[in-house]
Amino acid sequence: MLAEIITIGDEILIGQTVDTNSAWMGEQLHLIGVKLNRVITISDTREAILEAIDESFSRADLILMTGGLGPTKDDVTKETLAEYFDTKLKRNQEVLDRIESYFESRGFPILETNRQQADLPAAAEVMLNMRGTAMGMWFQKGKKALLSMPGVPYEMKGIMRDHGLYRIKTMFEPNTIIHKTVLTQGVGESFIADKMTDWENRLRAEGLALAYLPSPGMVKLRLTGYPLNGESDVVAQRMENYIDELKEAFPANVYGRERDKLAQVVGELMMLEGETVATAESCTGGTIAQMFTENPGSSNYFLGGAVTYSNQAKVEILGVNPEMIEKHGAVSEEVVKEMAAGARQKFGATYAIATSGVAGPDGGTETKPVGTVWIGLATPDGVQAQKWILGRSRSRNITVSAQTALNWLRNEIIKRRFE
Amino acid sequence: MLAEIITIGDEILIGQTVDTNSAWMGEQLHLIGVKLNRVITISDTREAILEAIDESFSRADLILMTGGLGPTKDDVTKETLAEYFDTKLKRNQEVLDRIESYFESRGFPILETNRQQADLPAAAEVMLNMRGTAMGMWFQKGKKALLSMPGVPYEMKGIMRDHGLYRIKTMFEPNTIIHKTVLTQGVGESFIADKMTDWENRLRAEGLALAYLPSPGMVKLRLTGYPLNGESDVVAQRMENYIDELKEAFPANVYGRERDKLAQVVGELMMLEGETVATAESCTGGTIAQMFTENPGSSNYFLGGAVTYSNQAKVEILGVNPEMIEKHGAVSEEVVKEMAAGARQKFGATYAIATSGVAGPDGGTETKPVGTVWIGLATPDGVQAQKWILGRSRSRNITVSAQTALNWLRNEIIKRRFE
Repeated sequence: MLAEIITIGDEILIGQTVDTNSAWMGEQLHLIGVKLNRVITISDTREAILEAIDESFSRADLILMTGGLGPTKDDVTKETLAEYFDTKLKRNQEVLDRIESYFESRGFPILETNRQQADLPAAAEVMLNMRGTAMGMWFQKGKKALLSMPGVPYEMKGIMRDHGLYRIKTMFEPNTIIHKTVLTQGVGESFIADKMTDWENRLRAEGLALAYLPSPGMVKLRLTGYPLNGESDVVAQRMENYIDELKEAFPANVYGRERDKLAQVVGELMMLEGETVATAESCTGGTIAQMFTENPGSSNYFLGGAVTYSNQAKVEILGVNPEMIEKHGAVSEEVVKEMAAGARQKFGATYAIATSGVAGPDGGTETKPVGTVWIGLATPDGVQAQKWILGRSRSRNITVSAQTALNWLRNEIIKRRFE
Repeated sequence: MLAEIITIGDEILIGQTVDTNSAWMGEQLHLIGVKLNRVITISDTREAILEAIDESFSRADLILMTGGLGPTKDDVTKETLAEYFDTKLKRNQEVLDRIESYFESRGFPILETNRQQADLPAAAEVMLNMRGTAMGMWFQKGKKALLSMPGVPYEMKGIMRDHGLYRIKTMFEPNTIIHKTVLTQGVGESFIADKMTDWENRLRAEGLALAYLPSPGMVKLRLTGYPLNGESDVVAQRMENYIDELKEAFPANVYGRERDKLAQVVGELMMLEGETVATAESCTGGTIAQMFTENPGSSNYFLGGAVTYSNQAKVEILGVNPEMIEKHGAVSEEVVKEMAAGARQKFGATYAIATSGVAGPDGGTETKPVGTVWIGLATPDGVQAQKWILGRSRSRNITVSAQTALNWLRNEIIKRRFE
């Protein structure tokens, strides 16, 4: 079976809003085995909506539609759907009660335009929106269906999770699809592909699919399996076997599965043994600290960090020897090691990671061009440093340096623990 | 005239990639006065591409197409376009030379599939891609045009900026549109709308348009003018007058124009007088430092910062009196003031900003619920603190706290300078 998405909204066509809803819906459909044929973004007018529905139903069995359900006059979706499905708007008492209590609980005055959101097409099955006042509406026409939802992402997701996905599964009974994602850091897409040619060929020969999803410094590998009835466990196990092979081939690079975050993976490793970490950042400018602290519970293992952009700060805060900076420069093995050692000692942490580099676009020299980055790592066993030559993009250099430092720490923790 | 976008790629349909290209192109078209009628995302197959082009040309004068131009076998766009425009692929020597030197300069081996990227439809005008090996291709068919570009965002943007937008303007001569964006922090959309009702009515009555674009802690206001021939300067000046009124109404909130970044605005203010700043972050966890240091040249005014998650770090690194923490707790006026004063002194900076709060989702208490944030500001005149009660979302609390601190500093610098 095929599905299409129709997104309604001028704010998307003029580029004020990036349409993230479609990617989310596309992924959800893919996960339950529904093939998405097209995404269409149109203007908020009756004509555009009627034309798009006609077209999509000529190709697909299911339409997911978002947007145009607000209380203001420029939102015409509901009336247009009533027209298309040849039905009338009727006030729904249950929905009206919900809308009234929604406003009441927030202490907002309720307007007649808000009450009108309870006027819904009589032929539609209402899918309650627990997060707002524009309801989901499920229409059927023979063997085809259309689900209209508000464009606010968390309201749309709520309706899909609470009702939509279940309804789609029961009506269309799509085949199961199994997805498993493996996350890697520090190894390029083509390098993996080259080393794993035989593995990839075997995997594809068995009917599994593989996608490489690169982003700066990271590559996600997504394996997909299409089990027949009753075969799910067997296929899932076979996929796990392939993933084990991948881990064996890249033990230092595979850091997680599905939606894991690298800094959180590192944090959880430390928490297992009550260990802690501190950071001393120059070129990454607080990004590593930010990556740790965006995760709830990070105060259990992240003690703090210093962002030492100036040489004086390196000396004052981290206790770097000013003669070292004088002699070797701030971007050097000697200084980044002192930064790591200083942070570990000042914060009283088990580990400390330090960065010093030329993020760009300016500041490069003949011997230290833009993209030169030193990373330091202090552990109870001593201090080490690594040099990297990255690219010319400031934001990319910052991101890749931060990830590289985190993954090095991850490997070091594992090595210390299992050696 | 109307334009449509056709995005080619299964990775978008299955939700692995969010389509950010369309929003960018939509905005660029809007800025030069071209109306975008539809965005269509389709699968990477010959049939889907041919069908979508036919449809789009039946409605629109211009098609912007992205994706499906890679060197691998699953990329069929180029062949399909040659078929549609009834032309043949022909090796382009200039493009071949570029591709070869692209690989040479990076020290990569060149494969035959890479050379084949120089085989281009003879009827197409080549638009050079300076950032990769898949070229832009401009096709004309009577009074209509199609521009095919690679899907990699920075390559697509390069081709649009270097060639595409100019070509579209010269071929279609769309009417001029003037946009001016005003950036505000710390005041809600509805509060602005309420206070500026008369202003907004006058502006609209003159034929100008206004859009509110809110994001956490920030609201952008975009004014749009549609001048007739020769009227551009007059309309632009009238828009500036409206913007002056807005600034007068919200002097502490309007921090910039167009694509300004708050931290950079603050940095440039400090640079004018050779002033510097340091940060002492608890709940924002390095985000303020990161916001300063993502900007090139930030080492001119940002000396460094401390991320002091643990109490020990607040004491050790910033010199906070441990009795203060004991007595008032880490999230308190007294402690955030000591953090700011300590950072200012340790880093030797003109200003220091400090944050301490309960970002959530856990860690709240009866007296200090999740969302409680203290912000401290140290200047040469002394130390102040402000308390904010934000929401329950960790990421939103972090972002809004960081922006609020930066905008407070901005106002303080201006006040000190002009009083």
